[in-house]
Amino acid sequence: MPRSTDARAKAVRTAGLLFQEQGYAATGLTEIIERSGSPKGSFYFHFPGGKEQLAVEALTAAGESVAEALRGLAARAPGPARLVRDYVKLQERMLENSGYRQGCPVATVTLEMASESEPIRAAAAGVFALWSGILADYLVRHGHRPGDAARSAEHIVATLEGALLLARAQQSTKPLRNAARTLTATLG
Amino acid sequence: MPRSTDARAKAVRTAGLLFQEQGYAATGLTEIIERSGSPKGSFYFHFPGGKEQLAVEALTAAGESVAEALRGLAARAPGPARLVRDYVKLQERMLENSGYRQGCPVATVTLEMASESEPIRAAAAGVFALWSGILADYLVRHGHRPGDAARSAEHIVATLEGALLLARAQQSTKPLRNAARTLTATLG
Repeated sequence: MPRSTDARAKAVRTAGLLFQEQGYAATGLTEIIERSGSPKGSFYFHFPGGKEQLAVEALTAAGESVAEALRGLAARAPGPARLVRDYVKLQERMLENSGYRQGCPVATVTLEMASESEPIRAAAAGVFALWSGILADYLVRHGHRPGDAARSAEHIVATLEGALLLARAQQSTKPLRNAARTLTATLG
Repeated sequence: MPRSTDARAKAVRTAGLLFQEQGYAATGLTEIIERSGSPKGSFYFHFPGGKEQLAVEALTAAGESVAEALRGLAARAPGPARLVRDYVKLQERMLENSGYRQGCPVATVTLEMASESEPIRAAAAGVFALWSGILADYLVRHGHRPGDAARSAEHIVATLEGALLLARAQQSTKPLRNAARTLTATLG
């Protein structure tokens, strides 16, 4: 049997993947418990807030995982246009490698639950702000004024979210490539 | 009792609203039947394909309703920047009037079901293509080259979808206003 902290982290990861692929409502606690292999008793010990708590933790963890990748790209990219292209390529690979099952790990649950659960809504808003903040800091380091950088960063996040949605509908990475092309044309 | 065609249309409208506000998986057939006031027997007569058929029809109807509004705005707008601003204002009002419960009527179901149901995925892709097509035609009438117009139009649709998602997470129309500002700066 895995150690308790491993089991807890595994439940969060499993939930995150199921929420990403099929959404919040379609994912039952039983499915999460079975797929993560954690004993049911310890599950409620770890997550007294049940599915809602798990969703908050899963969104936060998935958001941090994307943020970590984005920070890595930002450390290497010579300029904003290249950073956006690299970030988009990451998302293209995620879509292609999952047969278009895995888009944004946060978007589906956000749309389902933003008006139903304040903790889930706040966690989602926190994730989008985290990603925007990394992009905004990068833009400031590359000569953008802070206010402009914040707006541009949020615009990039919004555009890529919409492109991921269209990509899943079309089962094609074309909307992402189109977004990268249009965004980089104005970023330099 | 309403006429059969009225009852059918009402079931599609009710389903569309519930899908928009809470998503596909969270919306049960029983809730749709009860809220639309249609007798259960006639429901299965009208929708032998059940919830999946209803989702396809609801997405298509909601998509057409937005398209109709967009065509109306396009008939009056003197140029692309104004059209985008007017379109965004429409979406701001929809969010504000619903207490941020109603974002895009298609996005939530698309993210939940694109990998689960080919008919729903195809209907969603058709809706996004319909909206993009109206915008692309407008851009061509205002001097854009067809290929550029198609790309710009899809970019506008993607950006506004992402902005609607962020707006629901933030419970604020700020992402939409930011999207309008950035899109119109390049559209003229």
